[in-house]
Amino acid sequence: MTSKIYLDNNATTPLDGRVKTAISEALDLWANPSSNNENASKAAQAILEARGHLAKMFNVENDGVVFTSGGTESNNWVIEGSIRIARKVNQIEIPHIVTTNIEHPSILEPLKRREEDGEIAVTYVAVNPSTGFVTTESILDALTPSTCLVTVMLANNETGVLQPVSDIFHSIRETFKEKSPFLHSDVAQAAGKIHVDVKSLGADAVTVVGHKFYGPRNGALIFNPEGIRVPPMLLGGNQESGWRSGTENTPIIVGLGEAARIYNENSENIEKVLRYNRDHFEQLLVKYLQNSHLIHFHESPRLPNTSSVAFLNYPSHGCDLLEKCKTFNASTGAACHKNECSPILKACGVPFETASKTLRISFGRMTKVAEIETVVEEIVQLCSPVEGNENKDRVDALLLSQ
Amino acid sequence: MTSKIYLDNNATTPLDGRVKTAISEALDLWANPSSNNENASKAAQAILEARGHLAKMFNVENDGVVFTSGGTESNNWVIEGSIRIARKVNQIEIPHIVTTNIEHPSILEPLKRREEDGEIAVTYVAVNPSTGFVTTESILDALTPSTCLVTVMLANNETGVLQPVSDIFHSIRETFKEKSPFLHSDVAQAAGKIHVDVKSLGADAVTVVGHKFYGPRNGALIFNPEGIRVPPMLLGGNQESGWRSGTENTPIIVGLGEAARIYNENSENIEKVLRYNRDHFEQLLVKYLQNSHLIHFHESPRLPNTSSVAFLNYPSHGCDLLEKCKTFNASTGAACHKNECSPILKACGVPFETASKTLRISFGRMTKVAEIETVVEEIVQLCSPVEGNENKDRVDALLLSQ
Repeated sequence: MTSKIYLDNNATTPLDGRVKTAISEALDLWANPSSNNENASKAAQAILEARGHLAKMFNVENDGVVFTSGGTESNNWVIEGSIRIARKVNQIEIPHIVTTNIEHPSILEPLKRREEDGEIAVTYVAVNPSTGFVTTESILDALTPSTCLVTVMLANNETGVLQPVSDIFHSIRETFKEKSPFLHSDVAQAAGKIHVDVKSLGADAVTVVGHKFYGPRNGALIFNPEGIRVPPMLLGGNQESGWRSGTENTPIIVGLGEAARIYNENSENIEKVLRYNRDHFEQLLVKYLQNSHLIHFHESPRLPNTSSVAFLNYPSHGCDLLEKCKTFNASTGAACHKNECSPILKACGVPFETASKTLRISFGRMTKVAEIETVVEEIVQLCSPVEGNENKDRVDALLLSQ
Repeated sequence: MTSKIYLDNNATTPLDGRVKTAISEALDLWANPSSNNENASKAAQAILEARGHLAKMFNVENDGVVFTSGGTESNNWVIEGSIRIARKVNQIEIPHIVTTNIEHPSILEPLKRREEDGEIAVTYVAVNPSTGFVTTESILDALTPSTCLVTVMLANNETGVLQPVSDIFHSIRETFKEKSPFLHSDVAQAAGKIHVDVKSLGADAVTVVGHKFYGPRNGALIFNPEGIRVPPMLLGGNQESGWRSGTENTPIIVGLGEAARIYNENSENIEKVLRYNRDHFEQLLVKYLQNSHLIHFHESPRLPNTSSVAFLNYPSHGCDLLEKCKTFNASTGAACHKNECSPILKACGVPFETASKTLRISFGRMTKVAEIETVVEEIVQLCSPVEGNENKDRVDALLLSQ
């Protein structure tokens, strides 16, 4: 691997060395956990231990943890399952789903296809452009008697802004009581960075994926024991107590369990480290770039590790800036070859010119202070205010447009 | 792991040592293959190489290989996708599906649920009880103008009997031409044991899973370049060229590729070894147990590695026999705690008394001749004809009932 500083931890995190070891060792547990032999029992036992670590991480019982192939499967499952309940149990011909306009594509794309096919109706609630989050009122206002699912992500992957999921879900339960729709949150980007308690969140289920917190690429759908469930999407051999069929990918499940175990043991410290790194970075930017940069939704509750920063003074697109940066990796959230800006920033109401100059810098628990200083030094060199009125006027205009 | 001889290779195979090494090394390729950095390119390159090995194994182009989390996902996908085409493109309100009564639960269970929910109609064509396979005529007879999918497994996991898939699919194409339904075969149990050529099979797609041929638990859906496709089931970030979203599980994909590479390099030899092992076992049984045992569908085309054997002389169930066997692991295909017999053998028309005394012995390419002799010795000790007319009469009666 190259020696570039890695500041793209929201795209994927490195595997923790202990996770790597756990996976490598568990490659020996190749027996089919459903078989009736001693090695099968060992594999089943290893999966049980992993399940326990996940259950602890999200404050649920062991049977609330259903391992999946990843966040995309979990999100598609929730949509498929809640539509199935609406049609079969509640006899709703065209089920309605409420979500936000800044969800991950694994929520937005399955919804769009079903909407286009006339199977469902969807309300995409827009985030407030001054805060980057949806309000509880705007979600409540969107609900109809046909609503079978409300799905709101806990933290946005690009801006890092936290959505008021707990407030939204508790308000829905209070208003609709036993007629509440299925309440789901994609916590993929939050888990492993901040504490996520499924019960206090009030969700029926949350989507989790390992490779956002130093684990492997698989994931889980975590069910709240106090909530309702969607029926299984993948049927077959009745693995995962019937909730998700398919012979268990034992070593990868063990790796996910190890990532959860490591988080459980260090959760407070991890959050502190992430926040320190991010704050240090943002303070250095203020010091050296003054107001020629803009941190999106700086005043909103955010993930402790994410800075979405527009470098207003940079004369070209963020993709171009990233290409010039030799010391680190980060991302723009946009298809660079098309010179577009991030669809998420657009959905958040960030003007094109500002959005197109934005980098997402996502810190990890392994990021070092010296690395942050190296990165800031390079950014400052590339983005420092250029003398001359023309440029200054441009920056002032951009700042005013916010 | 214990030192018992492993003769349950149809349940799962051990990981090949080279596959294990490939996975362990690929744990370093943790970068998100969709990211725009050098490490991401390395991960994408490793996935491309794995794709090439799978494409070669099934005689398709690289873009025909779509990696999935396993056979269960692939099978559920084909069902979901062909129903979607039938409804959306062909405006069929209640799509019809033709399959056999001996498919894997990941075909039968999703069909049953949708049938119960009134979404689809299904014809389960029964295998011929004297051969263990379905006839082409019986499948053709089942097709209606509403049929959107014909799915027939290539090899049954318990009896090992090969179904005439190539003949069935070519006959359907000849009869229905461009109005042919989607033609799918679950080749999970055949791949890596016999050569599977998707083009000459005439399938539109086949289901593949790594852990049946010394690879990891993931799988693929392999599309025939000359066929049609089902739309994606999992939507999101457009990985796998949009055919299957979800961040790629790089090390596991690399492992599957390595398993395919090893098979490609040794395919003829592997089939010979498997067949030699199986035939040696069956010849020894004939020698020592004479006609107090029965090899199901002995005269039919079968997988080279599978013996489904009823030990007629054994006074109790197969589960009881397996428990007494100290030298090896195998399976019965039944829920032992319920004293049932295998639902597959039942579907094949094997009488309960015979089915309940059956073991599935599935050999591997690592099985040694000396191991087979040890196993036969133990079985013979436990199942030898007991002197006395009562028992002999019972065995004769069982043989007559076949």
